[in-house]
Amino acid sequence: MAVKGTEVTIARIYLTEGNKQAEVLLKRLHDWEQVRGVTIFRGIAGYGESGKIHTSKWVDLSLDLPVVVEFFDTPEKMEAIIDHLGDTIKPGHMLTWSARIND
Amino acid sequence: MAVKGTEVTIARIYLTEGNKQAEVLLKRLHDWEQVRGVTIFRGIAGYGESGKIHTSKWVDLSLDLPVVVEFFDTPEKMEAIIDHLGDTIKPGHMLTWSARIND
Amino acid sequence: MAVKGTEVTIARIYLTEGNKQAEVLLKRLHDWEQVRGVTIFRGIAGYGESGKIHTSKWVDLSLDLPVVVEFFDTPEKMEAIIDHLGDTIKPGHMLTWSARIND
Repeated sequence: MAVKGTEVTIARIYLTEGNKQAEVLLKRLHDWEQVRGVTIFRGIAGYGESGKIHTSKWVDLSLDLPVVVEFFDTPEKMEAIIDHLGDTIKPGHMLTWSARIND
Repeated sequence: MAVKGTEVTIARIYLTEGNKQAEVLLKRLHDWEQVRGVTIFRGIAGYGESGKIHTSKWVDLSLDLPVVVEFFDTPEKMEAIIDHLGDTIKPGHMLTWSARIND
Repeated sequence: MAVKGTEVTIARIYLTEGNKQAEVLLKRLHDWEQVRGVTIFRGIAGYGESGKIHTSKWVDLSLDLPVVVEFFDTPEKMEAIIDHLGDTIKPGHMLTWSARIND
């Protein structure tokens, strides 16, 4: 812990591109939860619980690439947000860890 | 902490694509700070302190996508680098955490 | 550590795009190690131990962009996997840290 700053919790939620989950989640985090910052990344390949590999090489799966929604805020706020999100996040699809933010 | 290795500090700096910040920062980390490794990622959507959502769907904002500059080095070196960067990183735009690197 | 959940270890392996390393690694993590989830991201610029900057701007290096293979599982399983991977991961090219997963 060499770096100073205030503690935050980072969350990463793993989705796929095929449906509008990421868009809905972004809107919710923005409008309702007013979380401090959100970034969405698209992977070029991957797989999750289904075990089915998604990759941009296979044309017919091109709408099914991994999408990661990453956001952070104070530990207290993150705990509340994650509690609100509840069942909308599938078990095993969200990682969280602690970090420091520059003030 | 199941995995062995030497401690490093990871930093992620959140920028947007519209200006040349990421390019300038990469050059600085490379030429001046000689940090061990740097990777820059572009998000497909997101928002930061302005609260304005940036997404690749809205053509007119296509140059304003989130960009994350990620780098890591020993805790001591990272502390010095972050100190050098000083005001060039806006408050609330850098996260840091500890990790282990394979030797 | 405000957020509940089971401990996992996250690993990020840093590669470049020019060869088929990422593809081989994904297949191995999927078929052999049966790791819980894997996501591969492509960076838009970066550099590693060679110090040579890779960026999508320079046409002749366009196949040499940074690629990050990220995966996670229980600490015990991750330790075993990383042990199996052994020399296939170059020193200084893998980061690991602890996180919590929603159950």
